Amino acid sequence: MFRSVSSTNIGMKMSEFESADQRRSYLEKKLNIKLGNVKKGLIDDIKDIHCENLIGAITLPLGVAGPLKLKGECVKGKFYIPLATSEGALVASVNRGCKAITMAGGAGVYAYKTGTTRGPVFFTGSLEKSKAFYIWLRKNESKLAEIGESTSSYLRLIKIDAKTLANYAFVRFYFDTADAMGMNMATFATDKIVNYIEEQTKIRCLSIAGNYDTDKKPAWINFIDNRGIKVWAEIILSKKILKDVLKTNASEFFDVWLAKCMLGSAMSGSMGFNSHFANVIAAFFAATGQDLAHTVEGSLGITTAKVLSGGDLYFSIHIPSLMLGTVGGGTNLKTKKEALSIIGVKTSLELAEVLAGAVLAGEISLLASLEEGLLAKAHKRLGR
Amino acid sequence: MFRSVSSTNIGMKMSEFESADQRRSYLEKKLNIKLGNVKKGLIDDIKDIHCENLIGAITLPLGVAGPLKLKGECVKGKFYIPLATSEGALVASVNRGCKAITMAGGAGVYAYKTGTTRGPVFFTGSLEKSKAFYIWLRKNESKLAEIGESTSSYLRLIKIDAKTLANYAFVRFYFDTADAMGMNMATFATDKIVNYIEEQTKIRCLSIAGNYDTDKKPAWINFIDNRGIKVWAEIILSKKILKDVLKTNASEFFDVWLAKCMLGSAMSGSMGFNSHFANVIAAFFAATGQDLAHTVEGSLGITTAKVLSGGDLYFSIHIPSLMLGTVGGGTNLKTKKEALSIIGVKTSLELAEVLAGAVLAGEISLLASLEEGLLAKAHKRLGR
Amino acid sequence: MFRSVSSTNIGMKMSEFESADQRRSYLEKKLNIKLGNVKKGLIDDIKDIHCENLIGAITLPLGVAGPLKLKGECVKGKFYIPLATSEGALVASVNRGCKAITMAGGAGVYAYKTGTTRGPVFFTGSLEKSKAFYIWLRKNESKLAEIGESTSSYLRLIKIDAKTLANYAFVRFYFDTADAMGMNMATFATDKIVNYIEEQTKIRCLSIAGNYDTDKKPAWINFIDNRGIKVWAEIILSKKILKDVLKTNASEFFDVWLAKCMLGSAMSGSMGFNSHFANVIAAFFAATGQDLAHTVEGSLGITTAKVLSGGDLYFSIHIPSLMLGTVGGGTNLKTKKEALSIIGVKTSLELAEVLAGAVLAGEISLLASLEEGLLAKAHKRLGR
Amino acid sequence: MFRSVSSTNIGMKMSEFESADQRRSYLEKKLNIKLGNVKKGLIDDIKDIHCENLIGAITLPLGVAGPLKLKGECVKGKFYIPLATSEGALVASVNRGCKAITMAGGAGVYAYKTGTTRGPVFFTGSLEKSKAFYIWLRKNESKLAEIGESTSSYLRLIKIDAKTLANYAFVRFYFDTADAMGMNMATFATDKIVNYIEEQTKIRCLSIAGNYDTDKKPAWINFIDNRGIKVWAEIILSKKILKDVLKTNASEFFDVWLAKCMLGSAMSGSMGFNSHFANVIAAFFAATGQDLAHTVEGSLGITTAKVLSGGDLYFSIHIPSLMLGTVGGGTNLKTKKEALSIIGVKTSLELAEVLAGAVLAGEISLLASLEEGLLAKAHKRLGR
Repeated sequence: MFRSVSSTNIGMKMSEFESADQRRSYLEKKLNIKLGNVKKGLIDDIKDIHCENLIGAITLPLGVAGPLKLKGECVKGKFYIPLATSEGALVASVNRGCKAITMAGGAGVYAYKTGTTRGPVFFTGSLEKSKAFYIWLRKNESKLAEIGESTSSYLRLIKIDAKTLANYAFVRFYFDTADAMGMNMATFATDKIVNYIEEQTKIRCLSIAGNYDTDKKPAWINFIDNRGIKVWAEIILSKKILKDVLKTNASEFFDVWLAKCMLGSAMSGSMGFNSHFANVIAAFFAATGQDLAHTVEGSLGITTAKVLSGGDLYFSIHIPSLMLGTVGGGTNLKTKKEALSIIGVKTSLELAEVLAGAVLAGEISLLASLEEGLLAKAHKRLGR
Repeated sequence: MFRSVSSTNIGMKMSEFESADQRRSYLEKKLNIKLGNVKKGLIDDIKDIHCENLIGAITLPLGVAGPLKLKGECVKGKFYIPLATSEGALVASVNRGCKAITMAGGAGVYAYKTGTTRGPVFFTGSLEKSKAFYIWLRKNESKLAEIGESTSSYLRLIKIDAKTLANYAFVRFYFDTADAMGMNMATFATDKIVNYIEEQTKIRCLSIAGNYDTDKKPAWINFIDNRGIKVWAEIILSKKILKDVLKTNASEFFDVWLAKCMLGSAMSGSMGFNSHFANVIAAFFAATGQDLAHTVEGSLGITTAKVLSGGDLYFSIHIPSLMLGTVGGGTNLKTKKEALSIIGVKTSLELAEVLAGAVLAGEISLLASLEEGLLAKAHKRLGR
Repeated sequence: MFRSVSSTNIGMKMSEFESADQRRSYLEKKLNIKLGNVKKGLIDDIKDIHCENLIGAITLPLGVAGPLKLKGECVKGKFYIPLATSEGALVASVNRGCKAITMAGGAGVYAYKTGTTRGPVFFTGSLEKSKAFYIWLRKNESKLAEIGESTSSYLRLIKIDAKTLANYAFVRFYFDTADAMGMNMATFATDKIVNYIEEQTKIRCLSIAGNYDTDKKPAWINFIDNRGIKVWAEIILSKKILKDVLKTNASEFFDVWLAKCMLGSAMSGSMGFNSHFANVIAAFFAATGQDLAHTVEGSLGITTAKVLSGGDLYFSIHIPSLMLGTVGGGTNLKTKKEALSIIGVKTSLELAEVLAGAVLAGEISLLASLEEGLLAKAHKRLGR
Repeated sequence: MFRSVSSTNIGMKMSEFESADQRRSYLEKKLNIKLGNVKKGLIDDIKDIHCENLIGAITLPLGVAGPLKLKGECVKGKFYIPLATSEGALVASVNRGCKAITMAGGAGVYAYKTGTTRGPVFFTGSLEKSKAFYIWLRKNESKLAEIGESTSSYLRLIKIDAKTLANYAFVRFYFDTADAMGMNMATFATDKIVNYIEEQTKIRCLSIAGNYDTDKKPAWINFIDNRGIKVWAEIILSKKILKDVLKTNASEFFDVWLAKCMLGSAMSGSMGFNSHFANVIAAFFAATGQDLAHTVEGSLGITTAKVLSGGDLYFSIHIPSLMLGTVGGGTNLKTKKEALSIIGVKTSLELAEVLAGAVLAGEISLLASLEEGLLAKAHKRLGR
């Protein structure tokens, strides 16, 4: 295990090159490697790329599941779901779920915008000052909203939560960032608000991101008080569909769900009472230009099942903190734009509803596979 | 908000096409869209792609940070770190951290393989049977190891944990899967072991994945009992480096770390006592062909800081459950292979050590930015 | 280990006796034991006792710590703290903390009433119905408040939170229950409100306690959204007091606090980032007639420390969910009344402030002991 | 709310008195109160009391539930369950559960001793030293066991776990402390072991209790890796018993259990997937002389239910970390001794099995009450 890899001939800093081509050539020469495919992958214009020290691009296979019939508040109709992944069996699994759902008449999907959150931490110096600070925040909410909203016409402050701890105060700003995922917008707005707060109160902000947001870490505040957009999806699968498409039955499906999503999750101290939200979300995020690190928020949530009379099955998923958008970030990149166009929606709420349906499809299929003992066989056939 | 998107002209199932070209053409016609870039992105050979219902590939910009000097048990020397992202400021941030670390003489990095876990759930029927089952497992460990290991010459059973609950038993198999991330291997092996267990004990396995693994959900069992490979990285930054490179000082950096990574994480019920492990891990995973959903495991962990005499700063990160590999899965794709060649390591432990160093670099830089109030400004300049 | 204890001569049901004396005599005869002290312990009148199948009472030694100087919003002055315990060293430890705090001029203490919560769960049948139910709740809040408040003149509905999940809805009612801990009040009020909801909406309540309250289980909703009364306490201890009374110094005290209350808590997946809130709370609750099971809520919370210039130490505690009262429940029992009279407060907020000061004292002293390596020695001298 | 309670006439320190009588008289005079009942409650001899600054004792009503039929590995037969509480309806509820269980033939109960844990934290200075320290611990386990065991003939070291983090190491010692709850024993043993470690390795122990134990805080390490004694209990209740004794039926009981113990617990971020373990445990602990603060550990755990064919119900509870003993601590006090004699067991494992049965009884009855909407009515009749 103690093999040392010595790369002492590396010298130049990656930031010192003027272009991707120069940087890439240097690496090829210095490390005696070929980066031709990475070069080939660079389809986008430099102006659309927000990635420093660029050398090219990686590629990730894109598959499509569906059609998936959805009956949402925002979206109605049949949709194809783009999923970018190198994990075999994933698209096939979601695809099978789509088939079952569509045959069953379509999934009910709902999305609600809680808001993109930024949670700075302030150092007040004492409990007395923390309390006064809290009161000041409550009194000046409209002014703070005004200041934050002045940074962008797309941004609206929804609400402010604050909690004090010793000589600190944690403040959680909730922003409606229209159709952008909105972390940049939220950060700018919060920055301006914080400057004003510091001026007025003389209380110093230690960090604009106090981990009270909580961004890209699994945190119960995101689950209980939500973050971004929260979604729900449900479907009733008839006994026949369960049998013909999913090779299972309600009663045994329910037993697997209970043992795994409920009891197994409790035994392991999990924040995700589900099968594999993260699989579908990561693949969907990669396809549609979302921030991949937000897969973390997406892994939180609960899958619910209930056996109905006649052997039908009620099935539902809930994701309390989905961070995504249809504009900004990686959504501008060419292949992501194309993937988004396969879905055809315009707003972040619509995109969230579609994703909710896709996650529902993935959950149904995986749980059915597990019930039938198919997981290993599927991965064998499709995974290597 | 009640805008409906009707896509009723969608008809054919995605699984019904014979080739990516046909599938893609159909979508272009039916949805009146262009997928030319997605077609362009398809660099790899079909035989290497494990993605069903293929239509092409998405691309993600690839940047490189470094050089980063590491002094690990497996790796020694300077490394360039490939990071695939559409989030501006990320590569620049990691790059700055690399600079500071390298100037400081290099980060100490350590990796330890706990093992890739699969956690099936069995239905025993009663506590008495659960107990007998537990005893049977303990007695037959070598036999089970033998059976599991017969599925692959690359696989070794490290250990078996088991916990009983009511009329269920949860079993956690830990496998050494050599240099593969290993979930497929682990699943096959577990499947074979489970078949044997069912034959011998007549106890039925409800699900080969009982959420006791716990795969792709944030779960305390992964944090406390670990999963995959666990890593640590540390560095001592001098007062001068803190000032010149990171524009900060030990004392104020420490105050930000404490308020954010410790207190803010506690206030929010977080499993990630860190700034943004997930950012670096998602970008590194996307670059090197890892399973993106495993970003979830990577978001767990603790960042630690300590002010030393003379104004120096001790800084360290710990990730208790990293799931990655240098072979298998997406690592075979062309652009991922090239990105991996930039790093130049061979084994999963070596790759883990390099990633630990990269995460350390990202943490240092972000915390310093927050201390200097730079987060908003950086995103403004690089993020849109 | 397999010694069987056979008690086959037990026959009569405990509920079948008319008086405590008869019940106790039966047990003495049947089990050949003496229960004279349990008889002796029965000081209270039957009418004040809410304990079925009574046979007598147990006793628990009562000690007193203090004086403790407090500067709260409700309480000001010096207080003696009654603590009932059989754990040696606890009262002495709190006492030492009281001494340090009082010498330092007194602790700042704050209490805020979030409200006693009841969290019923309703079965709606579908997401659509869950959503409609949520909207109905929001629209009818004043009516529900009216109905709840009609059950007691001491009760006021503060607010209603609701979250939907699949075909369920969880509703959290927050009640101001004056100076009672209030769970009985809250349950009655909720029961009446729920009956009204069921009539009006035809939505059925599955359980008046849906674990969304969350009563007597450690749950993040109590930490993040609070429950009962939340309290804070702080003190600045001079270098001299740290040395003379606590035999420690700010810097080393801080190091212990950080390693234990922050890092150790993170490593163990704890909800209590403190030394031993539960010790002080259990002893205080036992003394003052609180519900002992609510020690659970009291174990949640954060202890914070900061080294100040000159070697002074800022120290603070925060308990987000304290369930206590000065009337009702066990507070009517004679010895509890007397213990409460030692404190001399009237309202639950005042009592909470005093408890906050006591917990602060306990934390200071234990952390100082740990720093000095005294824990084992103290227990040896006082514990056996 | 700003009523100040001024008690400025308080002067003398509670530690300055020589006897309980003197202390109590002083308080009576100074505060103008009567403490006659607290005096009356003092039944025990001073030598058996481990409570500093004594003034007397509080009393808590003692009821008895049962008989409860148990079929354990250690205990067999019918038992009466002592419960000390001021919360009305609790004993009646447990009693009803005992009735159902006994009619059903008796509960299966199991107890397994994991060990009393102490979790010191060491400051190593670097990852390299942390690693070396870890290796040293592994190599010297037998020596450390020897040293720890030299402190008491009742103590045996079961195992040592260790985890490193940055420049710290957290070590978890598991001790078999015979029939004592064992925290004092464990602390002394750990103290001696730690002294040896410090001598040999020059690594300094920051705190003998590093929150890695984790004592009296709700922590996932106690749930996942256990602490003290873990217990399980199960029963099958026939359709008839469900109807006649519990006024419910399997199907509706199951629906309540699922919505509350599973879904409600998930929604609230709970560590206790149960109805009210803490109620029964607090009352049982108060009766039998346990450390009341350990109610916290006892609130962790899972209640499980399953509908069987014919309308019967399988029901089970699991408590992963029970801290209790039949010797030492408060078990020596007269009334606690008498309460223990009602149960009649000798060892801590036997006591744990009995408590498991009592908790099972409490769970069954409360869930049935909730199903029948009886909770509010029961509290009304018995609670005030």
